[in-house]
Amino acid sequence: MLVIKIGGPAGIDYARFARACATHDGEPFVVVHGGNDELDRLSTALNHPPKTIVSESGISSRFSDEQTMDHFLMAYCGKTNKRLVGLLQKNGVRAVGLSAMDGGIARAKRKDVLRVREGNKIKILRGDHSGKISSIDVRLLLMLLQNGFLPVLCPPALGENGEPINVDGDRLSAELAGALGAHTMILLSNVPGLLEKFPDETSLIHRIPREKINAYQSVAQGRMKKKIIGCAEALDKGVKRVILADARAENPIANALLGNGTVIE
Amino acid sequence: MLVIKIGGPAGIDYARFARACATHDGEPFVVVHGGNDELDRLSTALNHPPKTIVSESGISSRFSDEQTMDHFLMAYCGKTNKRLVGLLQKNGVRAVGLSAMDGGIARAKRKDVLRVREGNKIKILRGDHSGKISSIDVRLLLMLLQNGFLPVLCPPALGENGEPINVDGDRLSAELAGALGAHTMILLSNVPGLLEKFPDETSLIHRIPREKINAYQSVAQGRMKKKIIGCAEALDKGVKRVILADARAENPIANALLGNGTVIE
Repeated sequence: MLVIKIGGPAGIDYARFARACATHDGEPFVVVHGGNDELDRLSTALNHPPKTIVSESGISSRFSDEQTMDHFLMAYCGKTNKRLVGLLQKNGVRAVGLSAMDGGIARAKRKDVLRVREGNKIKILRGDHSGKISSIDVRLLLMLLQNGFLPVLCPPALGENGEPINVDGDRLSAELAGALGAHTMILLSNVPGLLEKFPDETSLIHRIPREKINAYQSVAQGRMKKKIIGCAEALDKGVKRVILADARAENPIANALLGNGTVIE
Repeated sequence: MLVIKIGGPAGIDYARFARACATHDGEPFVVVHGGNDELDRLSTALNHPPKTIVSESGISSRFSDEQTMDHFLMAYCGKTNKRLVGLLQKNGVRAVGLSAMDGGIARAKRKDVLRVREGNKIKILRGDHSGKISSIDVRLLLMLLQNGFLPVLCPPALGENGEPINVDGDRLSAELAGALGAHTMILLSNVPGLLEKFPDETSLIHRIPREKINAYQSVAQGRMKKKIIGCAEALDKGVKRVILADARAENPIANALLGNGTVIE
Protein backbone atom coordinates (compact mmCIF):
# COMPACT_ATOMS: atom_id res chain seq x y z
CA MET A 1 0.00 0.00 0.00
CA LEU A 2 1.13 3.53 -0.88
CA VAL A 3 -0.11 6.90 0.29
CA ILE A 4 0.67 9.64 -2.24
CA LYS A 5 0.25 13.28 -1.30
CA ILE A 6 0.24 15.88 -4.05
CA GLY A 7 0.67 19.48 -2.96
CA GLY A 8 -1.47 22.40 -3.96
CA PRO A 9 1.00 25.10 -5.06
CA ALA A 10 1.17 26.72 -8.47
CA GLY A 11 3.38 24.91 -10.98
CA ILE A 12 1.94 21.48 -10.24
CA ASP A 13 0.24 19.89 -13.24
CA TYR A 14 -2.68 17.81 -11.95
CA ALA A 15 -3.36 16.45 -15.45
CA ARG A 16 0.14 14.94 -15.48
CA PHE A 17 -0.36 13.55 -12.01
CA ALA A 18 -3.68 11.99 -13.07
CA ARG A 19 -1.94 10.26 -16.01
CA ALA A 20 0.71 8.95 -13.61
CA CYS A 21 -2.04 7.50 -11.37
CA ALA A 22 -3.68 5.84 -14.39
CA THR A 23 -0.45 4.15 -15.51
CA HIS A 24 0.72 3.14 -12.02
CA ASP A 25 0.86 -0.62 -12.14
CA GLY A 26 1.76 -1.71 -8.66
CA GLU A 27 0.36 -1.92 -5.18
CA PRO A 28 -2.90 -0.10 -4.35
CA PHE A 29 -2.68 3.50 -3.24
CA VAL A 30 -4.63 6.40 -1.76
CA VAL A 31 -4.25 9.98 -2.97
CA VAL A 32 -4.23 12.99 -0.64
CA HIS A 33 -4.12 16.49 -2.11
CA GLY A 34 -3.65 20.04 -0.90
CA GLY A 35 -5.19 23.32 -1.98
CA ASN A 36 -3.36 26.11 -0.15
CA ASP A 37 -2.79 28.33 -3.16
CA GLU A 38 -6.36 27.93 -4.37
CA LEU A 39 -7.58 28.84 -0.89
CA ASP A 40 -5.33 31.91 -0.80
CA ARG A 41 -6.69 33.08 -4.15
CA LEU A 42 -10.32 32.48 -3.16
CA SER A 43 -10.07 34.12 0.26
CA THR A 44 -8.34 37.14 -1.28
CA ALA A 45 -10.99 37.45 -4.01
CA LEU A 46 -13.68 37.27 -1.32
CA ASN A 47 -12.07 40.13 0.65
CA HIS A 48 -10.97 37.89 3.49
CA PRO A 49 -7.25 37.55 2.75
CA PRO A 50 -5.18 34.81 4.39
CA LYS A 51 -3.65 35.58 7.76
CA THR A 52 -0.58 33.67 8.89
CA ILE A 53 0.10 32.98 12.55
CA VAL A 54 3.34 31.70 14.09
CA SER A 55 3.24 29.29 17.01
CA GLU A 56 5.45 29.66 20.09
CA SER A 57 7.75 27.01 18.61
CA GLY A 58 8.06 28.95 15.36
CA ILE A 59 5.80 26.93 13.04
CA SER A 60 3.72 29.07 10.63
CA SER A 61 0.11 28.23 9.85
CA ARG A 62 -3.11 29.74 8.54
CA PHE A 63 -5.48 31.46 10.96
CA SER A 64 -8.72 29.58 10.22
CA ASP A 65 -11.80 31.42 11.40
CA GLU A 66 -15.26 30.14 10.48
CA GLN A 67 -15.43 32.12 7.25
CA THR A 68 -12.02 30.79 6.25
CA MET A 69 -13.33 27.26 6.84
CA ASP A 70 -16.16 27.88 4.34
CA HIS A 71 -13.55 29.03 1.84
CA PHE A 72 -11.42 26.01 2.77
CA LEU A 73 -14.29 23.64 1.95
CA MET A 74 -14.84 25.45 -1.35
CA ALA A 75 -11.19 25.46 -2.44
CA TYR A 76 -10.15 21.99 -1.23
CA CYS A 77 -13.29 19.81 -1.29
CA GLY A 78 -15.01 21.70 -4.09
CA LYS A 79 -12.81 22.92 -6.90
CA THR A 80 -9.50 21.10 -6.29
CA ASN A 81 -10.95 17.72 -5.31
CA LYS A 82 -13.54 17.49 -8.09
CA ARG A 83 -11.27 18.87 -10.83
CA LEU A 84 -8.72 16.17 -9.87
CA VAL A 85 -11.44 13.50 -9.78
CA GLY A 86 -12.50 14.61 -13.27
CA LEU A 87 -8.95 14.34 -14.62
CA LEU A 88 -8.58 10.87 -13.11
CA GLN A 89 -11.93 9.70 -14.50
CA LYS A 90 -10.90 11.03 -17.91
CA ASN A 91 -7.90 8.67 -17.68
CA GLY A 92 -10.10 5.72 -16.76
CA VAL A 93 -9.43 5.78 -13.02
CA ARG A 94 -12.54 5.15 -10.91
CA ALA A 95 -11.78 8.03 -8.57
CA VAL A 96 -13.95 8.90 -5.59
CA GLY A 97 -13.32 12.34 -4.08
CA LEU A 98 -13.72 12.70 -0.33
CA SER A 99 -12.80 14.99 2.50
CA ALA A 100 -11.39 13.50 5.69
CA MET A 101 -14.77 14.47 7.26
CA ASP A 102 -16.61 11.92 5.12
CA GLY A 103 -17.31 8.64 6.84
CA GLY A 104 -15.41 10.06 9.82
CA ILE A 105 -12.07 9.22 8.18
CA ALA A 106 -10.15 11.68 10.36
CA ARG A 107 -11.44 13.26 13.54
CA ALA A 108 -9.67 16.21 15.09
CA LYS A 109 -9.79 18.28 18.22
CA ARG A 110 -9.98 22.00 17.80
CA LYS A 111 -7.50 24.09 19.77
CA ASP A 112 -9.75 26.73 21.24
CA VAL A 113 -7.01 28.99 22.45
CA LEU A 114 -3.76 29.47 20.59
CA ARG A 115 -0.56 31.02 21.90
CA VAL A 116 1.01 32.85 18.97
CA ARG A 117 4.17 34.82 18.46
CA GLU A 118 3.90 38.44 17.33
CA GLY A 119 7.35 39.97 17.11
CA ASN A 120 8.90 39.32 20.51
CA LYS A 121 5.54 38.89 22.27
CA ILE A 122 3.39 35.84 22.89
CA LYS A 123 -0.32 36.57 22.45
CA ILE A 124 -3.52 34.60 23.06
CA LEU A 125 -5.70 34.09 19.98
CA ARG A 126 -9.24 32.68 19.91
CA GLY A 127 -11.61 31.61 17.11
CA ASP A 128 -9.25 29.34 15.21
CA HIS A 129 -10.66 26.16 13.67
CA SER A 130 -7.49 24.19 13.21
CA GLY A 131 -6.47 21.24 15.29
CA LYS A 132 -4.69 17.95 15.69
CA ILE A 133 -5.96 14.62 14.38
CA SER A 134 -7.27 12.50 17.26
CA SER A 135 -8.44 9.37 15.42
CA ILE A 136 -8.40 7.72 12.00
CA ASP A 137 -10.95 5.27 10.59
CA VAL A 138 -9.83 3.68 7.32
CA ARG A 139 -12.81 1.32 6.84
CA LEU A 140 -14.34 3.50 4.11
CA LEU A 141 -11.00 3.73 2.29
CA LEU A 142 -10.38 -0.03 2.45
CA MET A 143 -13.89 -0.74 1.18
CA LEU A 144 -13.32 1.58 -1.78
CA LEU A 145 -9.92 0.07 -2.59
CA GLN A 146 -11.26 -3.49 -2.38
CA ASN A 147 -13.93 -2.56 -4.91
CA GLY A 148 -11.61 -0.98 -7.44
CA PHE A 149 -12.14 2.69 -6.56
CA LEU A 150 -9.32 5.17 -5.97
CA PRO A 151 -9.94 7.33 -2.88
CA VAL A 152 -8.84 10.94 -3.44
CA LEU A 153 -9.01 12.90 -0.25
CA CYS A 154 -8.13 16.16 1.40
CA PRO A 155 -8.51 18.04 4.68
CA PRO A 156 -10.46 19.21 6.64
CA ALA A 157 -11.02 16.64 9.37
CA LEU A 158 -14.23 16.23 11.38
CA GLY A 159 -14.57 18.15 14.64
CA GLU A 160 -16.39 17.00 17.77
CA ASN A 161 -19.46 19.03 16.81
CA GLY A 162 -19.41 18.06 13.15
CA GLU A 163 -17.52 21.20 12.18
CA PRO A 164 -14.62 21.16 9.70
CA ILE A 165 -11.20 21.34 11.32
CA ASN A 166 -8.17 22.54 9.38
CA VAL A 167 -5.51 19.85 9.66
CA ASP A 168 -2.27 19.76 7.76
CA GLY A 169 -2.42 17.61 4.60
CA ASP A 170 1.06 16.12 5.04
CA ARG A 171 0.30 15.10 8.62
CA LEU A 172 -3.07 13.70 7.49
CA SER A 173 -1.16 11.63 4.92
CA ALA A 174 1.16 10.36 7.64
CA GLU A 175 -1.75 9.34 9.86
CA LEU A 176 -3.47 7.57 6.96
CA ALA A 177 -0.27 5.82 5.90
CA GLY A 178 0.18 4.54 9.44
CA ALA A 179 -3.43 3.39 9.83
CA LEU A 180 -3.48 1.73 6.40
CA GLY A 181 -0.22 -0.09 7.14
CA ALA A 182 1.32 1.56 4.06
CA HIS A 183 4.87 0.56 3.21
CA THR A 184 5.69 3.88 1.53
CA MET A 185 4.45 7.46 1.74
CA ILE A 186 5.30 9.85 -1.11
CA LEU A 187 5.02 13.61 -0.61
CA LEU A 188 5.07 15.39 -3.98
CA SER A 189 5.60 19.14 -4.19
CA ASN A 190 7.19 21.68 -6.52
CA VAL A 191 10.74 20.99 -5.33
CA PRO A 192 12.88 17.88 -5.93
CA GLY A 193 12.93 17.04 -2.21
CA LEU A 194 14.61 18.49 0.89
CA LEU A 195 17.21 21.04 -0.21
CA GLU A 196 20.35 21.67 1.86
CA LYS A 197 20.40 25.26 0.57
CA PHE A 198 16.85 26.19 -0.42
CA PRO A 199 16.04 27.16 -3.20
CA ASP A 200 19.19 25.69 -4.82
CA GLU A 201 17.86 22.49 -6.41
CA THR A 202 21.37 21.08 -6.86
CA SER A 203 21.63 20.92 -3.06
CA LEU A 204 19.11 18.03 -2.87
CA ILE A 205 19.62 15.73 0.10
CA HIS A 206 19.27 12.20 -1.35
CA ARG A 207 19.13 9.99 1.74
CA ILE A 208 18.29 10.52 5.38
CA PRO A 209 18.54 7.68 7.90
CA ARG A 210 15.23 7.54 9.75
CA GLU A 211 16.76 8.10 13.15
CA LYS A 212 18.25 11.40 11.95
CA ILE A 213 15.05 12.92 10.50
CA ASN A 214 14.50 15.42 13.31
CA ALA A 215 18.00 16.81 12.90
CA TYR A 216 17.00 17.94 9.41
CA GLN A 217 14.19 20.16 10.70
CA SER A 218 16.67 23.04 10.85
CA VAL A 219 17.43 22.65 7.13
CA ALA A 220 13.74 22.80 6.13
CA GLN A 221 12.30 26.14 5.02
CA GLY A 222 8.66 27.28 4.96
CA ARG A 223 6.15 24.54 4.20
CA MET A 224 8.91 21.93 4.17
CA LYS A 225 8.99 22.19 7.99
CA LYS A 226 5.56 20.58 8.24
CA LYS A 227 6.51 17.97 5.68
CA ILE A 228 9.44 16.92 7.87
CA ILE A 229 7.07 16.66 10.87
CA GLY A 230 4.77 14.52 8.70
CA CYS A 231 7.68 12.30 7.63
CA ALA A 232 8.72 11.72 11.25
CA GLU A 233 5.11 10.92 12.22
CA ALA A 234 4.70 8.44 9.37
CA LEU A 235 7.92 6.62 10.32
CA ASP A 236 6.81 6.57 13.98
CA LYS A 237 3.56 4.92 12.89
CA GLY A 238 5.33 2.09 11.14
CA VAL A 239 5.69 3.37 7.56
CA LYS A 240 8.96 1.91 6.22
CA ARG A 241 9.90 4.58 3.72
CA VAL A 242 9.01 8.20 3.07
CA ILE A 243 9.97 9.90 -0.19
CA LEU A 244 9.92 13.67 -0.72
CA ALA A 245 9.87 14.06 -4.49
CA ASP A 246 9.16 16.35 -7.41
CA ALA A 247 5.56 16.72 -8.58
CA ARG A 248 6.90 18.32 -11.79
CA ALA A 249 8.56 15.11 -13.09
CA GLU A 250 7.07 13.59 -16.25
CA ASN A 251 5.77 10.65 -14.19
CA PRO A 252 6.01 11.89 -10.61
CA ILE A 253 4.97 8.57 -9.01
CA ALA A 254 7.42 6.35 -10.94
CA ASN A 255 10.13 8.99 -10.48
CA ALA A 256 9.66 8.99 -6.71
CA LEU A 257 9.57 5.18 -6.48
CA LEU A 258 12.89 5.06 -8.38
CA GLY A 259 14.34 6.95 -5.43
CA ASN A 260 14.64 10.34 -7.12
CA GLY A 261 14.08 12.75 -4.28
CA THR A 262 14.85 12.65 -0.59
CA VAL A 263 14.39 9.11 0.68
CA ILE A 264 14.01 8.59 4.40
CA GLU A 265 14.14 4.97 5.54
CA MET B 1 -35.40 2.45 -0.83
CA LEU B 2 -36.01 6.19 -0.74
CA VAL B 3 -34.34 9.04 -2.57
CA ILE B 4 -34.68 12.32 -0.68
CA LYS B 5 -33.79 15.60 -2.37
CA ILE B 6 -33.36 18.68 -0.22
CA GLY B 7 -33.30 22.01 -2.03
CA GLY B 8 -30.74 24.73 -1.64
CA PRO B 9 -32.79 27.91 -1.17
CA ALA B 10 -32.71 30.22 1.81
CA GLY B 11 -35.10 29.31 4.62
CA ILE B 12 -34.17 25.62 4.64
CA ASP B 13 -32.67 24.49 7.92
CA TYR B 14 -30.09 21.81 7.14
CA ALA B 15 -29.56 21.11 10.85
CA ARG B 16 -33.23 20.15 11.16
CA PHE B 17 -32.98 18.00 8.04
CA ALA B 18 -29.90 16.25 9.48
CA ARG B 19 -31.81 15.44 12.68
CA ALA B 20 -34.66 14.04 10.57
CA CYS B 21 -32.18 11.79 8.73
CA ALA B 22 -30.75 10.59 12.05
CA THR B 23 -34.15 9.64 13.45
CA HIS B 24 -35.51 8.10 10.23
CA ASP B 25 -36.16 4.50 11.15
CA GLY B 26 -37.27 2.84 7.97
CA GLU B 27 -35.96 1.70 4.63
CA PRO B 28 -32.50 2.83 3.49
CA PHE B 29 -32.20 6.13 1.64
CA VAL B 30 -29.91 8.34 -0.39
CA VAL B 31 -29.77 12.13 0.03
CA VAL B 32 -29.40 14.55 -2.88
CA HIS B 33 -28.99 18.26 -2.18
CA GLY B 34 -28.98 21.51 -4.11
CA GLY B 35 -26.98 24.69 -3.74
CA ASN B 36 -28.41 27.27 -6.13
CA ASP B 37 -28.62 30.13 -3.66
CA GLU B 38 -25.12 29.49 -2.32
CA LEU B 39 -23.84 29.48 -5.92
CA ASP B 40 -25.64 32.75 -6.69
CA ARG B 41 -24.07 34.38 -3.63
CA LEU B 42 -20.58 33.09 -4.41
CA SER B 43 -20.65 34.01 -8.10
CA THR B 44 -21.90 37.48 -7.27
CA ALA B 45 -19.20 37.97 -4.62
CA LEU B 46 -16.60 36.85 -7.18
CA ASN B 47 -17.83 39.44 -9.71
CA HIS B 48 -19.26 36.84 -12.05
CA PRO B 49 -22.98 37.19 -11.31
CA PRO B 50 -25.45 34.49 -12.36
CA LYS B 51 -26.90 34.73 -15.84
CA THR B 52 -30.22 33.08 -16.60
CA ILE B 53 -31.05 31.75 -20.03
CA VAL B 54 -34.45 30.64 -21.31
CA SER B 55 -34.74 27.68 -23.67
CA GLU B 56 -36.90 27.69 -26.78
CA SER B 57 -39.53 25.76 -24.81
CA GLY B 58 -39.52 28.37 -22.04
CA ILE B 59 -37.54 26.58 -19.31
CA SER B 60 -35.14 28.86 -17.37
CA SER B 61 -31.68 27.71 -16.39
CA ARG B 62 -28.26 28.99 -15.38
CA PHE B 63 -25.70 29.83 -18.08
CA SER B 64 -22.77 27.71 -16.91
CA ASP B 65 -19.47 28.80 -18.40
CA GLU B 66 -16.21 27.26 -17.18
CA GLN B 67 -15.73 29.84 -14.43
CA THR B 68 -19.28 29.23 -13.22
CA MET B 69 -18.50 25.50 -13.04
CA ASP B 70 -15.56 26.23 -10.71
CA HIS B 71 -17.95 28.24 -8.53
CA PHE B 72 -20.50 25.42 -8.83
CA LEU B 73 -17.97 22.90 -7.49
CA MET B 74 -17.13 25.26 -4.64
CA ALA B 75 -20.73 26.01 -3.63
CA TYR B 76 -22.27 22.57 -4.12
CA CYS B 77 -19.47 20.01 -3.54
CA GLY B 78 -17.45 22.20 -1.18
CA LYS B 79 -19.42 24.26 1.29
CA THR B 80 -22.96 22.84 1.02
CA ASN B 81 -22.02 19.17 0.79
CA LYS B 82 -19.45 19.17 3.59
CA ARG B 83 -21.45 21.38 5.96
CA LEU B 84 -24.37 18.93 5.55
CA VAL B 85 -22.06 15.94 6.06
CA GLY B 86 -20.79 17.61 9.25
CA LEU B 87 -24.34 18.12 10.58
CA LEU B 88 -25.21 14.49 9.81
CA GLN B 89 -22.03 13.20 11.47
CA LYS B 90 -22.80 15.34 14.52
CA ASN B 91 -26.11 13.42 14.74
CA GLY B 92 -24.36 10.07 14.50
CA VAL B 93 -25.07 9.43 10.82
CA ARG B 94 -22.11 7.94 8.93
CA ALA B 95 -22.50 10.35 6.02
CA VAL B 96 -20.27 10.26 2.95
CA GLY B 97 -20.43 13.35 0.76
CA LEU B 98 -20.05 12.87 -2.97
CA SER B 99 -20.69 14.63 -6.25
CA ALA B 100 -22.33 12.72 -9.06
CA MET B 101 -18.88 12.84 -10.76
CA ASP B 102 -17.39 10.57 -8.09
CA GLY B 103 -17.17 6.94 -9.08
CA GLY B 104 -18.89 7.96 -12.33
CA ILE B 105 -22.29 7.95 -10.59
CA ALA B 106 -23.88 10.14 -13.28
CA ARG B 107 -22.42 10.83 -16.70
CA ALA B 108 -23.79 13.60 -18.86
CA LYS B 109 -23.42 14.93 -22.35
CA ARG B 110 -22.70 18.59 -22.70
CA LYS B 111 -24.88 20.54 -25.10
CA ASP B 112 -22.30 22.46 -27.07
CA VAL B 113 -24.72 24.80 -28.77
CA LEU B 114 -27.85 26.12 -27.09
CA ARG B 115 -30.80 27.78 -28.73
CA VAL B 116 -32.05 30.38 -26.28
CA ARG B 117 -34.88 32.85 -26.24
CA GLU B 118 -34.08 36.55 -25.87
CA GLY B 119 -37.29 38.54 -26.04
CA ASN B 120 -38.95 37.41 -29.25
CA LYS B 121 -35.73 36.18 -30.83
CA ILE B 122 -34.05 32.78 -30.76
CA LYS B 123 -30.26 33.08 -30.43
CA ILE B 124 -27.38 30.59 -30.59
CA LEU B 125 -25.26 30.44 -27.43
CA ARG B 126 -21.95 28.59 -27.01
CA GLY B 127 -19.72 27.81 -24.02
CA ASP B 128 -22.35 26.35 -21.74
CA HIS B 129 -21.39 23.39 -19.52
CA SER B 130 -24.80 22.02 -18.73
CA GLY B 131 -26.25 18.87 -20.15
CA LYS B 132 -28.46 15.87 -19.89
CA ILE B 133 -27.67 12.74 -17.88
CA SER B 134 -26.72 9.89 -20.24
CA SER B 135 -25.97 7.09 -17.76
CA ILE B 136 -26.18 6.22 -14.08
CA ASP B 137 -23.99 3.80 -12.14
CA VAL B 138 -25.27 3.09 -8.63
CA ARG B 139 -22.66 0.49 -7.61
CA LEU B 140 -20.79 2.95 -5.38
CA LEU B 141 -24.04 4.03 -3.70
CA LEU B 142 -25.17 0.43 -3.08
CA MET B 143 -21.79 -0.47 -1.63
CA LEU B 144 -21.98 2.48 0.77
CA LEU B 145 -25.54 1.65 1.83
CA GLN B 146 -24.71 -2.02 2.38
CA ASN B 147 -21.90 -0.97 4.69
CA GLY B 148 -23.93 1.42 6.81
CA PHE B 149 -22.92 4.70 5.19
CA LEU B 150 -25.37 7.38 4.06
CA PRO B 151 -24.51 8.74 0.57
CA VAL B 152 -25.07 12.50 0.36
CA LEU B 153 -24.69 13.72 -3.18
CA CYS B 154 -25.12 16.64 -5.49
CA PRO B 155 -24.53 17.71 -9.06
CA PRO B 156 -22.47 18.16 -11.21
CA ALA B 157 -22.30 15.03 -13.34
CA LEU B 158 -19.22 13.76 -15.15
CA GLY B 159 -18.65 14.88 -18.74
CA GLU B 160 -17.07 12.86 -21.52
CA ASN B 161 -13.72 14.60 -20.98
CA GLY B 162 -13.84 14.44 -17.20
CA GLU B 163 -15.28 17.94 -16.94
CA PRO B 164 -18.12 18.81 -14.54
CA ILE B 165 -21.51 19.14 -16.22
CA ASN B 166 -24.30 21.15 -14.64
CA VAL B 167 -27.32 18.84 -14.38
CA ASP B 168 -30.51 19.62 -12.55
CA GLY B 169 -30.62 18.18 -9.02
CA ASP B 170 -34.27 17.12 -9.18
CA ARG B 171 -33.73 15.29 -12.44
CA LEU B 172 -30.56 13.69 -11.00
CA SER B 173 -32.70 12.50 -8.08
CA ALA B 174 -35.21 11.03 -10.52
CA GLU B 175 -32.50 9.16 -12.43
CA LEU B 176 -31.02 7.82 -9.19
CA ALA B 177 -34.42 6.78 -7.83
CA GLY B 178 -35.08 4.88 -11.04
CA ALA B 179 -31.68 3.17 -11.13
CA LEU B 180 -31.82 2.28 -7.41
CA GLY B 181 -35.32 0.83 -7.80
CA ALA B 182 -36.56 3.27 -5.16
CA HIS B 183 -40.20 2.98 -4.16
CA THR B 184 -40.52 6.67 -3.25
CA MET B 185 -38.80 9.92 -4.19
CA ILE B 186 -39.26 12.94 -1.90
CA LEU B 187 -38.48 16.44 -3.18
CA LEU B 188 -38.22 18.88 -0.26
CA SER B 189 -38.22 22.62 -0.84
CA ASN B 190 -39.39 25.79 0.88
CA VAL B 191 -43.04 25.38 -0.20
CA PRO B 192 -45.58 22.78 1.01
CA GLY B 193 -45.81 21.20 -2.47
CA LEU B 194 -47.30 22.19 -5.80
CA LEU B 195 -49.51 25.25 -5.31
CA GLU B 196 -52.56 25.88 -7.51
CA LYS B 197 -52.09 29.63 -6.99
CA PHE B 198 -48.43 30.23 -6.18
CA PRO B 199 -47.44 31.64 -3.64
CA ASP B 200 -50.75 30.99 -1.79
CA GLU B 201 -49.86 28.04 0.46
CA THR B 202 -53.54 27.27 1.13
CA SER B 203 -53.86 26.34 -2.56
CA LEU B 204 -51.77 23.16 -2.09
CA ILE B 205 -52.64 20.39 -4.53
CA HIS B 206 -52.78 17.23 -2.37
CA ARG B 207 -52.97 14.42 -4.92
CA ILE B 208 -52.14 14.05 -8.58
CA PRO B 209 -52.81 10.79 -10.43
CA ARG B 210 -49.58 9.80 -12.17
CA GLU B 211 -51.06 9.85 -15.64
CA LYS B 212 -52.05 13.50 -15.18
CA ILE B 213 -48.66 14.83 -14.05
CA ASN B 214 -47.81 16.59 -17.31
CA ALA B 215 -51.07 18.50 -17.26
CA TYR B 216 -49.85 20.20 -14.06
CA GLN B 217 -46.79 21.68 -15.76
CA SER B 218 -48.84 24.79 -16.55
CA VAL B 219 -49.59 25.31 -12.83
CA ALA B 220 -45.91 25.14 -11.83
CA GLN B 221 -44.00 28.40 -11.41
CA GLY B 222 -40.24 29.04 -11.52
CA ARG B 223 -38.11 26.17 -10.17
CA MET B 224 -41.23 24.04 -9.65
CA LYS B 225 -41.32 23.51 -13.45
CA LYS B 226 -38.14 21.41 -13.30
CA LYS B 227 -39.43 19.54 -10.27
CA ILE B 228 -42.51 18.48 -12.24
CA ILE B 229 -40.25 17.27 -15.08
CA GLY B 230 -38.22 15.33 -12.46
CA CYS B 231 -41.40 13.81 -11.01
CA ALA B 232 -42.56 12.64 -14.44
CA GLU B 233 -39.12 11.15 -15.18
CA ALA B 234 -39.03 9.29 -11.85
CA LEU B 235 -42.48 7.78 -12.47
CA ASP B 236 -41.43 6.83 -16.00
CA LYS B 237 -38.43 5.00 -14.54
CA GLY B 238 -40.56 2.87 -12.24
CA VAL B 239 -40.68 4.90 -9.03
CA LYS B 240 -44.09 4.22 -7.46
CA ARG B 241 -44.63 7.48 -5.59
CA VAL B 242 -43.23 10.99 -5.70
CA ILE B 243 -43.89 13.46 -2.88
CA LEU B 244 -43.31 17.22 -3.16
CA ALA B 245 -43.15 18.36 0.45
CA ASP B 246 -42.09 21.10 2.83
CA ALA B 247 -38.46 21.19 3.96
CA ARG B 248 -39.49 23.59 6.74
CA ALA B 249 -41.57 21.00 8.66
CA GLU B 250 -40.27 19.97 12.09
CA ASN B 251 -39.40 16.54 10.71
CA PRO B 252 -39.54 17.01 6.95
CA ILE B 253 -39.01 13.30 6.10
CA ALA B 254 -41.71 11.91 8.41
CA ASN B 255 -44.02 14.75 7.38
CA ALA B 256 -43.62 13.89 3.69
CA LEU B 257 -44.06 10.14 4.26
CA LEU B 258 -47.34 10.89 6.10
CA GLY B 259 -48.55 12.30 2.79
CA ASN B 260 -48.35 15.98 3.74
CA GLY B 261 -47.51 17.64 0.46
CA THR B 262 -48.32 16.88 -3.15
CA VAL B 263 -48.38 13.12 -3.62
CA ILE B 264 -48.14 11.79 -7.16
CA GLU B 265 -48.78 8.07 -7.52
